[in-house]
Amino acid sequence: MTTRLSDVAARAGVSVKTVSNVINDYPHITSQTRAKVEAAIAALDYRPNVSARSLRKGRSDFIALAIPEMASPYFAELGAAISRAAKKRGITVLIDQTEGESAAEKLVLDGMRGQLIDGIIFSPITTAPTKIDSAGTAKPLLLLGERPAAGTFDHVAVDSVKASFDATTHLISIGRRRIAAIGVGGGAGTGAVRRKGYRKALKAAGLPHDPALELAGTGYHRPDGAASMRELLALPEPPDAVFCFNDLLALGALRTLADAGLSVPDDVAVVGFDDIEDGRFHSPSLTTISPDKEWLAENAVDLLLERISGNAEAARRDLSVPYTLEIRESTAG
Amino acid sequence: MTTRLSDVAARAGVSVKTVSNVINDYPHITSQTRAKVEAAIAALDYRPNVSARSLRKGRSDFIALAIPEMASPYFAELGAAISRAAKKRGITVLIDQTEGESAAEKLVLDGMRGQLIDGIIFSPITTAPTKIDSAGTAKPLLLLGERPAAGTFDHVAVDSVKASFDATTHLISIGRRRIAAIGVGGGAGTGAVRRKGYRKALKAAGLPHDPALELAGTGYHRPDGAASMRELLALPEPPDAVFCFNDLLALGALRTLADAGLSVPDDVAVVGFDDIEDGRFHSPSLTTISPDKEWLAENAVDLLLERISGNAEAARRDLSVPYTLEIRESTAG
Repeated sequence: MTTRLSDVAARAGVSVKTVSNVINDYPHITSQTRAKVEAAIAALDYRPNVSARSLRKGRSDFIALAIPEMASPYFAELGAAISRAAKKRGITVLIDQTEGESAAEKLVLDGMRGQLIDGIIFSPITTAPTKIDSAGTAKPLLLLGERPAAGTFDHVAVDSVKASFDATTHLISIGRRRIAAIGVGGGAGTGAVRRKGYRKALKAAGLPHDPALELAGTGYHRPDGAASMRELLALPEPPDAVFCFNDLLALGALRTLADAGLSVPDDVAVVGFDDIEDGRFHSPSLTTISPDKEWLAENAVDLLLERISGNAEAARRDLSVPYTLEIRESTAG
Repeated sequence: MTTRLSDVAARAGVSVKTVSNVINDYPHITSQTRAKVEAAIAALDYRPNVSARSLRKGRSDFIALAIPEMASPYFAELGAAISRAAKKRGITVLIDQTEGESAAEKLVLDGMRGQLIDGIIFSPITTAPTKIDSAGTAKPLLLLGERPAAGTFDHVAVDSVKASFDATTHLISIGRRRIAAIGVGGGAGTGAVRRKGYRKALKAAGLPHDPALELAGTGYHRPDGAASMRELLALPEPPDAVFCFNDLLALGALRTLADAGLSVPDDVAVVGFDDIEDGRFHSPSLTTISPDKEWLAENAVDLLLERISGNAEAARRDLSVPYTLEIRESTAG
């Protein structure tokens, strides 16, 4: 028979609330009361390492979100949306910035080392997909971002090949023929799948792809976009359009174009990916792929909570996030 | 005598590591081993609700950072810096987005409801300073942001009055005489203290302050700055300079100025506060107050860790974050 909170309360001669307060380390409890409750807990073999609240419901109502970097506006906006979606359901989200370090990602896969969380939403960068799929996590886990089609865990992401195809096709539709791509070296497969969509669009339009126009850069931040754009402008035959694999790269590229005195979109049209607020307020405002972050957040949280409650289907699920192409001044003038 | 992990291991006939794994809920433990360890824990009255790791060291090596909104680049950059500073010291930071809601802020003051964290860095918005100071938190707590000079908890913040004085004085020094302020209604005292510095600078220069030029707005985001700037441009006598109380407001104001065909800084000079990356890459780049976020992060984490380890001085400390005025294109042309 499982010992219940009320058994502890009865034995200690205090209320259930007081027992809960002791276990949750709440303030304003006398040492005498604390001692009584702790003696009852010991005598009744009350299950250790779980808060009273968790024990009552078998849950803590905390989940973790592990993201590579919170200073990247895309992840910051996504984290805010997931936090809001969870709060609507009575859940608090704790966010862990892994910086894509393998030790930090391992901590996540290990279930956050005994933290009292019910489950984890994880956007991995460094850890190989095979290693993730074989991880025997102690807690329900949901993956975000580019993944191979098959896998062990539930997965929510934008179809990046299709979205990149659409972004590139938009540049072709406004008459551009020499279209560069910035960010082909991006981590966690992002660079590879977005390049795939980019090349597919060029091919569909009968345009050749020029390796000189595909820049890896060293990261996915504004300075990387600015540097890659400088490289492109130094080419004997610079591009007339650039598809940047995220908005930060695009904003960096726009700064380089402004410094060079070039007009956007007349001289060079620019498309980004993510639809961060920054791009909407920029002059020129940034045309971009806009994933529905609210949809992503709501569905990721729902899926994880179903898994936590044991109400999910046994088979893993793979959800594709709706997106739109937001056409703004950087391609529409 | 305190029961130690090794006592539990000896009684259960397993290694210390195995006991730790059981308590931390690691996978790949047979139910037989788990039962043996749990029996030993019960028999020895091993302290509940603390992970083995915590017990061994009296610490979990997790701290929480509670901020109003992670999608605000200032808080995102600050969170990233605090996370990095903690990681250097072997500590993992879990970030909680309160959205300034009183229930969420109360959860923070209550010590995050039994989560296995050693301490909390808290940037409050809604909860009144007196309520914070009287909170009997179960865990060491450090406060960020504008606070009254006296208080119960350690505190790290920029001297906002002085910084706002400097920002306004810079606008006066480049010949501006009709200087507006956007954000005077900001939460947690931010609006009030920054307005104080702004007015002080006007007074020191012998300039009158015009209430029509002090806009509260409805928030501290780009759309608020854009709307406030539209109001200012609709005045019979619009300003020749604007001091925005954060960079997001300034970036919104810049967008409105661009839409109105006005030149920055020739027609209107703009200064922000925070030095987020966005402002550095914007065209024109944004003059701003730049708090040393790395310094803030390192010192906040050190102070909290000293408090957690019991090595801090008894008296609360109040650290002032160094800052610089970064002069860029939005005032220097």
